[in-house]
Amino acid sequence: MEKIPILKMGKYLLVTIQVDLYDRLAMNLESDLAEMITKTSARGVLIDISAVNIVDSFISRIIGNIAQMSRILDAHTVVVGMRPAVAITLIELGLPLTGVHTALNVEKGMDMLKKYVDDESMLLESEDYTDDSIN
Amino acid sequence: MEKIPILKMGKYLLVTIQVDLYDRLAMNLESDLAEMITKTSARGVLIDISAVNIVDSFISRIIGNIAQMSRILDAHTVVVGMRPAVAITLIELGLPLTGVHTALNVEKGMDMLKKYVDDESMLLESEDYTDDSIN
Repeated sequence: MEKIPILKMGKYLLVTIQVDLYDRLAMNLESDLAEMITKTSARGVLIDISAVNIVDSFISRIIGNIAQMSRILDAHTVVVGMRPAVAITLIELGLPLTGVHTALNVEKGMDMLKKYVDDESMLLESEDYTDDSIN
Repeated sequence: MEKIPILKMGKYLLVTIQVDLYDRLAMNLESDLAEMITKTSARGVLIDISAVNIVDSFISRIIGNIAQMSRILDAHTVVVGMRPAVAITLIELGLPLTGVHTALNVEKGMDMLKKYVDDESMLLESEDYTDDSIN
């Protein structure tokens, strides 16, 4: 397999990671996601890692990169379905996934994304597009 | 990997098949799905096969089994994201996925499931639960 499928669900993109992310696969995922975000004008990316048993520094870096890249393209990233053991490993390895939002499951992650997107559009409306300080 | 993750999205369950379905994995998927449908009272199952390059008689039988099993548990099954080459292969092999609904992508599949579920509840309301002929 060379590609992880990216599913479009309304304004959001859903990615389920089921296999070990080796170098090329991870790079493909990054570039495919960047392309899909711009093509579909997606406002959020949901990454499900409930099938991932082992997380190392490589995967955690990839997730961080995806989150940063999405942010530049005006989309939020939420990681969902993390197993308890994975959370423990991440903290013990000193990789607390800084800058990445997390939620318990896909439904909660989707709610989180909706909230972010709604908050932003409300902010834009109330500021009437005149304030440059909006991130 | 021993399990394919099943994601709950509202009244529906979403399964993305990204790896080759060997015997045990397929059997696990069937039993996990049956369990999830009963546990979550799901009304529909969406199976995304956009990452599947090769479909043989085994996978097509598994998909057929899942659809029949879901139907008994009062849930509809829609297969989405089939590649053109896979569709050609299925027909050439004489495996037209009888009894399985298909849609182009996840969004259309979700619409299809919503329609089935809405139609059923309308039918039930109009018949006032008195007609035994409803399947």
